[in-house]
Amino acid sequence: MGGIRMKNGKKIAFIGAGVMGGPMAGHLMDAGHSLTVYTRTREKAEALNQKGARWAASPAEAADGAEVIMTMVGYPKDVEEVYFGERGIFSTAGSGAVLIDFTTSSPQLAVRIAEQAESAGCSAVDAPVSGGDVGARNATLSIMCGGPEKAFSEILPLLEKVGQNIVYHGPAGSGQHVKMSNQVVIATSMIGVCEALAYAVKSGLDPELVLKSISAGAAGSWTLSNLAPRMLKGDFAPGFYIKHFLKDLRIALDESKALGLELPGVALAERMYTTLAETGSEDEGTQALYKLYL
Amino acid sequence: MGGIRMKNGKKIAFIGAGVMGGPMAGHLMDAGHSLTVYTRTREKAEALNQKGARWAASPAEAADGAEVIMTMVGYPKDVEEVYFGERGIFSTAGSGAVLIDFTTSSPQLAVRIAEQAESAGCSAVDAPVSGGDVGARNATLSIMCGGPEKAFSEILPLLEKVGQNIVYHGPAGSGQHVKMSNQVVIATSMIGVCEALAYAVKSGLDPELVLKSISAGAAGSWTLSNLAPRMLKGDFAPGFYIKHFLKDLRIALDESKALGLELPGVALAERMYTTLAETGSEDEGTQALYKLYL
Repeated sequence: MGGIRMKNGKKIAFIGAGVMGGPMAGHLMDAGHSLTVYTRTREKAEALNQKGARWAASPAEAADGAEVIMTMVGYPKDVEEVYFGERGIFSTAGSGAVLIDFTTSSPQLAVRIAEQAESAGCSAVDAPVSGGDVGARNATLSIMCGGPEKAFSEILPLLEKVGQNIVYHGPAGSGQHVKMSNQVVIATSMIGVCEALAYAVKSGLDPELVLKSISAGAAGSWTLSNLAPRMLKGDFAPGFYIKHFLKDLRIALDESKALGLELPGVALAERMYTTLAETGSEDEGTQALYKLYL
Repeated sequence: MGGIRMKNGKKIAFIGAGVMGGPMAGHLMDAGHSLTVYTRTREKAEALNQKGARWAASPAEAADGAEVIMTMVGYPKDVEEVYFGERGIFSTAGSGAVLIDFTTSSPQLAVRIAEQAESAGCSAVDAPVSGGDVGARNATLSIMCGGPEKAFSEILPLLEKVGQNIVYHGPAGSGQHVKMSNQVVIATSMIGVCEALAYAVKSGLDPELVLKSISAGAAGSWTLSNLAPRMLKGDFAPGFYIKHFLKDLRIALDESKALGLELPGVALAERMYTTLAETGSEDEGTQALYKLYL
């Protein structure tokens, strides 16, 4: 375990230090916790290593001896590998450790992790975040938590170092379910904003003036205020990647199917984003949905 | 023309004094303008009559001698009747009069009215509003305007008595097009909010807590903040009627078809609201879309 550990500082393993995990891990080190970090691509851990974090060659090595084990990876298959793989967290996680998965992932997988954690004498909290890279850098993420309430209380001081709007929602998988609700709202909201702009442009209006007329009223939304201007500029740079959003929408559809619930709005969004991904836009931002209307 | 007309007061005809038109006409009288009012149901004009407005037995009678003729009725067919009918506005409107249609109606009809107005020596402004009955009562409506810019400038002081966010968007029909853009955003936003709540409830979450987690972030919208709580309470009382929203969505689809534009999100909303209307919910509020997910 590297870094200068302060009194009450925790021994933390952080697995996955990309655009989100990197700054989050940094805030925890700044707060006096000692970090061991594992990333698939070693260079991504460089900044944390320079701050004094110790490098580990596998999730198992990172988790060995850690009091708190945090993960922020890409897809459910990565989460599965990192926890259940041959050199995964569960091969070394010590009794009493708390496992926190920040990845937006499958609620059912969160339940499996929680069950495995329990049988290993650990506890697991699913804690997906929203707020993007800006929220990660500014430690203003919203964090949606599920798992044993005792474990949540124990790690809350750590979560407060990386986020602001931190809500406990219930048993394992609850945090992931809330994040799915969040993505469901965003998906259809994006369709509406694209259709309104496309309609405005096609009917000969000045779309900037249209935004002035409609943004403050009943049509107002974060998407309209923040992404519509980028759409109009043709700025499709990723704030949030289409490939990741598509992963989320597919989880939401799988879960809703399991719950016997039809979500035609999400299904429409999933079809549209699939078309985009198949035509080379998977590494663009979600606002590139607008391209389908051009 | 009834009421005490002040210096610079205008002779205004107001046609359609329901939940929206009634308060709007009242604000104009309070500002010292003299009003003649026509409503299909005479009782609806009662409050204005008591304030000193003169009653007229037809749109033609109301429009006769008026400097400004305002309409706020229900459907495009009502607009058509009120302007082009046998006892309609165009049978008496005097040269130089300015015609203002506040109804959310067809952009193509707005263009027809503008052309007829021009050939009668008048001018017409399409000026649909948003902000609902609360906005009408508090004179805080957003007003989206199309028509000759000169006519718009002339009536702007009157519009300022009933609204706040008043934007001129271009030639006849532009106001209606902007209002359609507004409704397009709202339609899909409503689907997303319903699907997120239904998903949250079905997955066992406390939906109030979910709103706490997601309302302040990228999923945030007027719909989520204002209508989701009503959905959860089963409060489907009309702020905005489904039957009127459905009218708007059909206009948006007709117009987009004419523009060669596909709007799958709006098309989905139109199908869902049609189902609701056909099952007896047409006089409920737009948030009753949530019933389809219960």
